[in-house]
Amino acid sequence: MSLTQLDRAASAHDAPSHHDDLRRRLMETRALSNDLAQPLSDEDQVVQAMDDASPTKWHLAHTTWFFEAFVLSRFLPGYSRFDDNFEYCFNSYYESVGPRHPRPFRGLLTRPSGDAVRDYRAHVDEALETLFTHDVPQEASTLIELGINHEQQHQELLLTDILSLFASQPLKPAYRDVVDGETPRDADPTAFVSFDGGVFKVGHDGTGFSYDNEGPRHEQLIRPFKLANRCVTNAEWIAFIEDGGYETAGLWLADGWTLINDEGWRAPLYLERSDGGYRQMGLRGFRPANPAAPVAHVSYFEADAFARWAGYRLPSEFEWEHASASIPQKGRTLGNGFLSPQPASDQARLTQMFGDVWEWTASAYLPYPGYKPAPGAVGEYNGKFMCNQFVLKGGSCVTPEGHIRRTYRNFFYPHQRWQFTGLRLAADA
Amino acid sequence: MSLTQLDRAASAHDAPSHHDDLRRRLMETRALSNDLAQPLSDEDQVVQAMDDASPTKWHLAHTTWFFEAFVLSRFLPGYSRFDDNFEYCFNSYYESVGPRHPRPFRGLLTRPSGDAVRDYRAHVDEALETLFTHDVPQEASTLIELGINHEQQHQELLLTDILSLFASQPLKPAYRDVVDGETPRDADPTAFVSFDGGVFKVGHDGTGFSYDNEGPRHEQLIRPFKLANRCVTNAEWIAFIEDGGYETAGLWLADGWTLINDEGWRAPLYLERSDGGYRQMGLRGFRPANPAAPVAHVSYFEADAFARWAGYRLPSEFEWEHASASIPQKGRTLGNGFLSPQPASDQARLTQMFGDVWEWTASAYLPYPGYKPAPGAVGEYNGKFMCNQFVLKGGSCVTPEGHIRRTYRNFFYPHQRWQFTGLRLAADA
Amino acid sequence: MSLTQLDRAASAHDAPSHHDDLRRRLMETRALSNDLAQPLSDEDQVVQAMDDASPTKWHLAHTTWFFEAFVLSRFLPGYSRFDDNFEYCFNSYYESVGPRHPRPFRGLLTRPSGDAVRDYRAHVDEALETLFTHDVPQEASTLIELGINHEQQHQELLLTDILSLFASQPLKPAYRDVVDGETPRDADPTAFVSFDGGVFKVGHDGTGFSYDNEGPRHEQLIRPFKLANRCVTNAEWIAFIEDGGYETAGLWLADGWTLINDEGWRAPLYLERSDGGYRQMGLRGFRPANPAAPVAHVSYFEADAFARWAGYRLPSEFEWEHASASIPQKGRTLGNGFLSPQPASDQARLTQMFGDVWEWTASAYLPYPGYKPAPGAVGEYNGKFMCNQFVLKGGSCVTPEGHIRRTYRNFFYPHQRWQFTGLRLAADA
Amino acid sequence: MSLTQLDRAASAHDAPSHHDDLRRRLMETRALSNDLAQPLSDEDQVVQAMDDASPTKWHLAHTTWFFEAFVLSRFLPGYSRFDDNFEYCFNSYYESVGPRHPRPFRGLLTRPSGDAVRDYRAHVDEALETLFTHDVPQEASTLIELGINHEQQHQELLLTDILSLFASQPLKPAYRDVVDGETPRDADPTAFVSFDGGVFKVGHDGTGFSYDNEGPRHEQLIRPFKLANRCVTNAEWIAFIEDGGYETAGLWLADGWTLINDEGWRAPLYLERSDGGYRQMGLRGFRPANPAAPVAHVSYFEADAFARWAGYRLPSEFEWEHASASIPQKGRTLGNGFLSPQPASDQARLTQMFGDVWEWTASAYLPYPGYKPAPGAVGEYNGKFMCNQFVLKGGSCVTPEGHIRRTYRNFFYPHQRWQFTGLRLAADA
Repeated sequence: MSLTQLDRAASAHDAPSHHDDLRRRLMETRALSNDLAQPLSDEDQVVQAMDDASPTKWHLAHTTWFFEAFVLSRFLPGYSRFDDNFEYCFNSYYESVGPRHPRPFRGLLTRPSGDAVRDYRAHVDEALETLFTHDVPQEASTLIELGINHEQQHQELLLTDILSLFASQPLKPAYRDVVDGETPRDADPTAFVSFDGGVFKVGHDGTGFSYDNEGPRHEQLIRPFKLANRCVTNAEWIAFIEDGGYETAGLWLADGWTLINDEGWRAPLYLERSDGGYRQMGLRGFRPANPAAPVAHVSYFEADAFARWAGYRLPSEFEWEHASASIPQKGRTLGNGFLSPQPASDQARLTQMFGDVWEWTASAYLPYPGYKPAPGAVGEYNGKFMCNQFVLKGGSCVTPEGHIRRTYRNFFYPHQRWQFTGLRLAADA
Repeated sequence: MSLTQLDRAASAHDAPSHHDDLRRRLMETRALSNDLAQPLSDEDQVVQAMDDASPTKWHLAHTTWFFEAFVLSRFLPGYSRFDDNFEYCFNSYYESVGPRHPRPFRGLLTRPSGDAVRDYRAHVDEALETLFTHDVPQEASTLIELGINHEQQHQELLLTDILSLFASQPLKPAYRDVVDGETPRDADPTAFVSFDGGVFKVGHDGTGFSYDNEGPRHEQLIRPFKLANRCVTNAEWIAFIEDGGYETAGLWLADGWTLINDEGWRAPLYLERSDGGYRQMGLRGFRPANPAAPVAHVSYFEADAFARWAGYRLPSEFEWEHASASIPQKGRTLGNGFLSPQPASDQARLTQMFGDVWEWTASAYLPYPGYKPAPGAVGEYNGKFMCNQFVLKGGSCVTPEGHIRRTYRNFFYPHQRWQFTGLRLAADA
Repeated sequence: MSLTQLDRAASAHDAPSHHDDLRRRLMETRALSNDLAQPLSDEDQVVQAMDDASPTKWHLAHTTWFFEAFVLSRFLPGYSRFDDNFEYCFNSYYESVGPRHPRPFRGLLTRPSGDAVRDYRAHVDEALETLFTHDVPQEASTLIELGINHEQQHQELLLTDILSLFASQPLKPAYRDVVDGETPRDADPTAFVSFDGGVFKVGHDGTGFSYDNEGPRHEQLIRPFKLANRCVTNAEWIAFIEDGGYETAGLWLADGWTLINDEGWRAPLYLERSDGGYRQMGLRGFRPANPAAPVAHVSYFEADAFARWAGYRLPSEFEWEHASASIPQKGRTLGNGFLSPQPASDQARLTQMFGDVWEWTASAYLPYPGYKPAPGAVGEYNGKFMCNQFVLKGGSCVTPEGHIRRTYRNFFYPHQRWQFTGLRLAADA
Repeated sequence: MSLTQLDRAASAHDAPSHHDDLRRRLMETRALSNDLAQPLSDEDQVVQAMDDASPTKWHLAHTTWFFEAFVLSRFLPGYSRFDDNFEYCFNSYYESVGPRHPRPFRGLLTRPSGDAVRDYRAHVDEALETLFTHDVPQEASTLIELGINHEQQHQELLLTDILSLFASQPLKPAYRDVVDGETPRDADPTAFVSFDGGVFKVGHDGTGFSYDNEGPRHEQLIRPFKLANRCVTNAEWIAFIEDGGYETAGLWLADGWTLINDEGWRAPLYLERSDGGYRQMGLRGFRPANPAAPVAHVSYFEADAFARWAGYRLPSEFEWEHASASIPQKGRTLGNGFLSPQPASDQARLTQMFGDVWEWTASAYLPYPGYKPAPGAVGEYNGKFMCNQFVLKGGSCVTPEGHIRRTYRNFFYPHQRWQFTGLRLAADA
């Protein structure tokens, strides 16, 4: 939501049909979070496997606090906070809201209990329903839309964070036991699709929701390029491993080379050689890696080294966005229920652009020309992270339905790989 | 249990009355662990607040594994292990048993679940009952005795570890809500009891259970000394704080001075100045500190600096043991239910020697002359820690009944203070 | 030097006039390094103040090794290496050359001695003179040109590294005692110069020397913008400090906010409040900060926060390069001898673009379209650092004469600030 | 020097013959430090190889500051300090004297220069000579005696610190090129000498100089024991290595086992397998290890594990002191000039007790009964380190002549091994 949108929204109200649609999407989103926690015990929900991850319970409470702090406290007259301590416990990084429980200690919060957090969710959901019994001011409506998208992001994190927890345990439990969409088989060879150069508009045009970092829409000069019709597969990655990719300094950025040697990385996260083959920890447990499925859980450093090894490069975020214009914004995302990336399913011109794995681009995550974060706490959402991260495009197998767009700019540090992150090759035309 | 005891025990059997007594004490101990976990949710039981601490669930499972690995597998024919993965999960530090889950990651074990661990306990308890339906070989009986004492130690740790978890949380919950034994009041002034010097026997004489580190019994030359009739109180410690004790380099060992400045220590753990007074986090929550109660949660460095400030010194472990000879081995331990150290309750010659707080001594934790650890895994119990730690005597408010002895040698590193550790002053006569 | 240049150069020879010019510039550069070390004792030259810095002796030897390894060993028949151990000691980061002494331990190398390194320089200089008595193959000539520029970079580092060493010492010695070019005075207010937008060519056109990262020359779309006519001054920075800039979370990138709080940064490196005023450690010792001089030794995080506070932004590297087209490539660099940045000296349209301080841009240091590093070890020069760093433009008061270009892309991590790094404000037109 | 000695000394003066002897010993000690620095360049003298070590220049200046701060400033009327900054630079750890340059940064002090420090030494030596032209108050005399011994300790450290520097460099230079005293040969088998038990006096009796930590003289109960007639040799240690000593958990204290695995220790410091044999870095360079020479540069953890492997134990400090009573206080120390430990040279009942290597004892470094440190800064000399260290006895090949005593208590942390530290086996009789 851009600054301008917020300004314009200040005194208006929401149209009736949008009002109902918003309520429905809000409640569906709220319910989905509860569903995602269903297979998890209270124990599973309280522990934090690493600093980057958060406990399920924390995700459930933090997304709820977001509505309480930014919507209900301001727009529902007479709303009473569920518990005054919760702001300290469940604020994430909003400096302007006040002090907060330190991120690395989120996993210590055995109190408030899982039950208390479920009650908190019910309390806030009920208040949100009450809010919708009246006209909803447009500013509130804008913030609710942001809250829905915010909660959807946390749904994806909830799943990747649980995976990191389960993978760190000796028993390597499964989150859910579901079947693959495709029988394991070899992938077809990669084909490349060519695109002409020119000056093109990129970024969000303001129709419907977007994060502030997707705009302003502006022109970019793009040179002729070609883009692989599918993602890099496990089989291709294993060839890279077995060709000594992780032992060849010349393929790596200097920081990446230091990192993989300090950490002893010799494969993507969760992928292990085992009994002659390769097995992979995933949300469905520790299972043989499907050779034709997209490789996942690689860092930017690894993606960049692989591309160099293969004689290609990563696409820029603008090349990716431009290429995606011809493709419907659909793919194997969370709604499909696979919970893991699937092999390219057909001979479409460009496959796997949406869903399956987030695709690293060669673009540093920086502000678009003219970008200004929103005023107030919600302005801390995106802008303050615009340094030392890279843009990823397209969404993954655990991105909630309706949460992905061509202009979406996900961002992670180049060493991070606990998300479902993969890559697609590109080259100059 | 000493090496000699084990050797002598090899082919003998347990006498009938001891057999029943042992069974009863075993089952009471096993039941007490379950009781101690009662006020805690599964969430509380899975989390680890710091590397030194372990989760409640881990304590419950590890003490159970001890009986499975060292008793049932060897002495109950046909015993089948509850789950083969548990040895990896719940071995603590027995190198000779095999690899194990790393200590700092004990708090990640959301699986096996709390229910599974309770089932594990029931399974092992049932097998132990079965074992007692027959003659119990004396070697098994010796190991069961060790297992009881081992579990008692973990009961104390369970409580101090939960305190560290609860203290680290914003809500600072209470473990149990019980009342103090004594109304807050000022303590009587310290009196000193004098003891003559001489060559005295110290260490365990082999009657009844003891850890191997309590023997061999041997002679020590003790010089005339005097010992305070009670522990140092919170009020006395606050006087030390307010006299600038934590800012006066000359009072401190060099390593202690570095530590308190690096860590910013200006008070015992869990003690905070608050609204003009002092409050203390304890198992009964965050409450005003009782001035007459023994100070607790001080490190050796702090105890040593306090003694220097007060113009005294800490007693040696032998002085303490020798002085205790005139005192019954009783005190306010776990059975009293106070869950916090209490003011000296009367005008006895020496009070608070047993219970309330562990008392730091000036003795490095080193082997007694002629000490040899037992062969096999249980020999890793005590001996391999004989370096850089100091001996503490007397037990605390959370030491289980029957677990304390004059000859008991507890040991912690000089920087550690999450146990109920306090001090008693001494001087040359 | 681009890949293409290297390829074309393979069998050609250098033209006579270029031959003489190259020899002269080479020998001047070699002599300048010796001159820069003149004010320093052997002790000053051996010590390393921090991991990022290197000892003077190491700079002197490493730049010499570069000529030995890449030029003399290949192009001077019968050349005998001065000492076979020196490659291990003085290789910097060329993975493809072989193992090397770890960077953080460069300061341990008391042997080879300062005298040995001076002999090494003389030995290599003599061999280089011998090389020039014959025709120099163009490939060698290209590598010598690279070697000159490489040594010039190390000359700048030698001075900033010595400053970091001297600043870390209690006596805060001066490197040289020279006078300022300008009397301390207030700076004129900043004026902004406007530029039209369009598609413009940027990057090096291949005429004369450039590093490979300056090309290929290519088109960039630039939007209308305006650029400050001078750098931000110490006085303006002090206003930022005194307005609470370092205490206002909303001004900072999240990583910067964490960094300045972890490290306790409240001012640029080397700038200290002292007796009511501000003093600054520099190559001329610890002296009052000139209010009108450009602020130096700020990190990207600080530059970015300052710009936000001031209501502006940093320019992109392309805006800077485009704006510089109207300006001669001259400024107060090392040849001027001031050894510190000087106040803007006149009312020129754009001042201080070259020299004084390196100017942080908002551009991540990434490859230009079509960039490919040179094959072989010299290809490790620039490309492998293209991650997590930002581009700086314009050179500083300690950049050697002739070493700066419009297209020059210097790069440092956003937290680094031991170079003479400052900033110039920009805005959308 | 004990507190009592200081008190008694306050108003007395030194006897004439002691006056001359003290002056002579002082000047010889001062001259020896200069001699020891002779083979080292200014570069060698300024660098610090690790936090535990100090640069030669720092040793030379710090020992000089000791006389300036504690003797000349108080007892030479009109003495003017050489440079007021030097106290900050060259105070080691005397908290009561004031702030000081942090230990890990001692190696940054290129200024004051080596020349300045040599001038400082000459300035202080001259002032000390002046002091001796008059009667020397006994308090000064006592402090001068302490200063001599203090400087002798730093002479030993100077050599071990230079060894650590030279060993960390790729060129592995020799400090001096001297010959061994003995031709390499096999050592004779160890014999054990038996001693009766009893209550014996230990500690310094106050005749002549001693450190405060050597007293008060007091009684200790010693049990019958036997002591090896020589130190453990390199050949014996290599047998331990080759028997898997470093891979056998059961031999190690828990902290030692963690340490050797974290650090990858598989041999004593400076000992390396090389071309089938073993080589050792020493003050005479990198040379084949003499099998019959005492093993050196082992930590307490290693010494303790070796003894356990061999079926013995380390002696207590009291056993060692008691056994040494029959032996003259002579050995191969610094005056012999070997600069490395030598094989046991004859069939004496007990050999190598003094000199060659410091011998780890099983005694924690704790105060003797009744110990009180001296008041004032010199009281920080020994007492504040009485925690987590172990006592070593007997002196080494680089201990200055006249600096060793039966009652001398050297102390190091159990992980430290850059001194010439070895061991001698013991057992219960």
